[in-house]
Amino acid sequence: MKEEFKQYFIKILGKENAHFDQTHKIAYSYDATKKHYLPDGVLFPRNEEDISDILKFCNDRGIIVVPRGAGTGMSGGSLAVNGGLILAFEKHMNKILEIDLDNLVAVVQPGVINMHLQKEVAKYGLFYPPDPASMEHSSLGGNVSENAGGMRATKYGITKDYVLALRAVLPNGEIISAGKRTVKDVAGYNLAGILIASEGSLAVFSELTLKLAALPKFKKTAMGIFPNVKSAMNAVFKTLASGVTPASMEFLDNLSICAVETKFNIGLPINAGAILVVEVDGNIEASIDEDLKMIKHYFLEENASEFKIARDEKEAKDIWFARKNCSQSIAMYGKLKLNEDITVPRSKLPDLLEGIAEISKKYGFKIPCFGHAGDGNVHTNIMVEDKNNQEQVKKGYLAVEELFKLTIKLGGTLSGEHGIGISKASFMNLAFSDAEMNLMRNIKKAFDPNNILNPFKMGL
Amino acid sequence: MKEEFKQYFIKILGKENAHFDQTHKIAYSYDATKKHYLPDGVLFPRNEEDISDILKFCNDRGIIVVPRGAGTGMSGGSLAVNGGLILAFEKHMNKILEIDLDNLVAVVQPGVINMHLQKEVAKYGLFYPPDPASMEHSSLGGNVSENAGGMRATKYGITKDYVLALRAVLPNGEIISAGKRTVKDVAGYNLAGILIASEGSLAVFSELTLKLAALPKFKKTAMGIFPNVKSAMNAVFKTLASGVTPASMEFLDNLSICAVETKFNIGLPINAGAILVVEVDGNIEASIDEDLKMIKHYFLEENASEFKIARDEKEAKDIWFARKNCSQSIAMYGKLKLNEDITVPRSKLPDLLEGIAEISKKYGFKIPCFGHAGDGNVHTNIMVEDKNNQEQVKKGYLAVEELFKLTIKLGGTLSGEHGIGISKASFMNLAFSDAEMNLMRNIKKAFDPNNILNPFKMGL
Repeated sequence: MKEEFKQYFIKILGKENAHFDQTHKIAYSYDATKKHYLPDGVLFPRNEEDISDILKFCNDRGIIVVPRGAGTGMSGGSLAVNGGLILAFEKHMNKILEIDLDNLVAVVQPGVINMHLQKEVAKYGLFYPPDPASMEHSSLGGNVSENAGGMRATKYGITKDYVLALRAVLPNGEIISAGKRTVKDVAGYNLAGILIASEGSLAVFSELTLKLAALPKFKKTAMGIFPNVKSAMNAVFKTLASGVTPASMEFLDNLSICAVETKFNIGLPINAGAILVVEVDGNIEASIDEDLKMIKHYFLEENASEFKIARDEKEAKDIWFARKNCSQSIAMYGKLKLNEDITVPRSKLPDLLEGIAEISKKYGFKIPCFGHAGDGNVHTNIMVEDKNNQEQVKKGYLAVEELFKLTIKLGGTLSGEHGIGISKASFMNLAFSDAEMNLMRNIKKAFDPNNILNPFKMGL
Repeated sequence: MKEEFKQYFIKILGKENAHFDQTHKIAYSYDATKKHYLPDGVLFPRNEEDISDILKFCNDRGIIVVPRGAGTGMSGGSLAVNGGLILAFEKHMNKILEIDLDNLVAVVQPGVINMHLQKEVAKYGLFYPPDPASMEHSSLGGNVSENAGGMRATKYGITKDYVLALRAVLPNGEIISAGKRTVKDVAGYNLAGILIASEGSLAVFSELTLKLAALPKFKKTAMGIFPNVKSAMNAVFKTLASGVTPASMEFLDNLSICAVETKFNIGLPINAGAILVVEVDGNIEASIDEDLKMIKHYFLEENASEFKIARDEKEAKDIWFARKNCSQSIAMYGKLKLNEDITVPRSKLPDLLEGIAEISKKYGFKIPCFGHAGDGNVHTNIMVEDKNNQEQVKKGYLAVEELFKLTIKLGGTLSGEHGIGISKASFMNLAFSDAEMNLMRNIKKAFDPNNILNPFKMGL
């Protein structure tokens, strides 16, 4: 980074907000992928005008800018893989600007942590439905950039369903607003629609207007134990088609069940083919009891050997314990975990898991799977026993490629929650045609003709 | 249209699907705006390949193409205002391709009529939530192009919330697919997101994958009579913030009430400031009764002079009668109706209606309003008494402009449901900055560099 550039940023932001020392560079070189790329500097914009000034300056000089929320991304979206400046919102642009009770809307800056918003709106009996597993640490700007999902997607949808409007700065420094504080707005192109999930590559968010919902007054948890995945999934289909829509329908496969049981010894049925954990919520207790009655009916009809409803919060926590501890428990199967967040139409989940069993056999890896049965989003974990064995690691990545091919064949997507970033960029050509890739490149160019904003991510 | 061009289309489509006679041109020259523009021809593609062949040919030669669903649009989106070819889907591409019960999804061609889909999926206890007033006649391709709303938007959202995936043909003839049969898909840009609401100007839909929902088993209707709009809206805010989300919350203002009463003499309270019509639905009767109890509580707290719950379907129909007959009844106020579908954040509805009263006074027009209290979408009707009086008509359009300015000032949008097309194109600069308009033009160029697809609509 040229000295005169550094001086410009120090001049407009103050030296406390423009950093070019090694310590800052290292601190902002990583995300949850555990990959490291040193940026050329770290800037903390104080407001929208700062973002605009920075982008205009960089755009005129071809300096790369990478927006960054909390750095919890799973696909490298916020990594400066080609150098450039990190634009970080955590220091100043982390405020909840408004909680609007009449319209059930929150207006926030991009650096607000998801859980911070949840806690504030809970004071008014409200919640923000998107609940990525990272929600205690991840920022809403990052959530919108990656279009984060979560446990409640079956009933409540994902991030894009809750962004009513936003303000953003284009790479040339122009400030735009998109959408309104209304459910209905059909004037002009759906600019917010294309900015959501764009992984910080089209514009920099400066303000987000998010839809809130009333916190359900009651919630209950139940668990069913199934002989195999097919019967568990049939129970899911029947439940959802009946009009009962649980907030969550989570599953563990046999390997995941065994891993949790081995580690924690909590009495899980190690011969079960699958466990489903279900949470129902609503404002009327009798109504969710009725939901549970129907769920029980469909679960037993599909040969669940046990159906247990938690009688209190402690029992609910016990039931959730297995699901929430999958990720750490499966470490017993290998030192290197190649985990993906593929998603298939939920009807294809049994086929997917069958195919995964074949991949497991072919490559000799254990592949425990758990995740969101209600929406077909599976966390697959190819467990490579020895992470220092190059041969094994290479085979592991071949298995990943095969997994992606299987997913696409079943009408699924490379990523249900984490985004593409750099970690799945090389697989984009499996999922998209040349025409589709070219179209995405043309859209990128329409927003960012000089290619300064988080360039070359997503295989673009 | 050059003879050789005509011959090409006849060759690839057959003469029964390529028409250049005056009768066809006239038949496809109109939509619900009642404006007429003669196209140069009418083509009925039989499949996606036909669309691709047509577009490629036209793109290479600069021939304008205008996709058209059922011609029920309210803003001129399907009118060939600059000539060119109408691409009509009603003859061949009108099939429901699949109803997928496990994933609760329907796959349809763009020419399928909304109500046709509703009837088919109702056989399985399902429904497609978006319910534009035109649903008995409008096509799903048109619904997606305009991002149609409806009565149920407060609870169920609008068209864009139900499009999971689509196939489309780019102006250069390339076929793309966007989205998956899954709630979660975050691979690549949200191409479906930008295509929805693009008014046929970016690509031509060839297939739509739509999310379905289980039909609620019970629904009940109620009505509240309020002294003024402010108290009615307060009742709406309190209801929604409490977690009770009616499927519909519709309102009539005093002028609308008086018009319906004058025409039908059904005993409406002509001194009331507003009537709210509420519909609640759900699977458990006790639960919707509880909802109604809470609604009644909030309505009475906000000075409703009456709260009536329909005891059967007949009584429900009677309650809905007033709302459904607003549009025709207000004709008593003038021969020319300048109706708009502006939307403001619902908290601003009282301010909007106050501002409208001032516009009414200033210009001397009656402006009855009714619509969707739950989502802030108001059907405003500037009633010009004498449509042959040029002076009056001109004043009417000045009043429309003032209405749009007021709407924008209140954080609202030019259109909640109908789209911009040609009818609101000249007001786009009130609602969007130069930066936003330029960005939309750049997006248009990214999809359609030769500007052949429904060009110059939306003020682009």
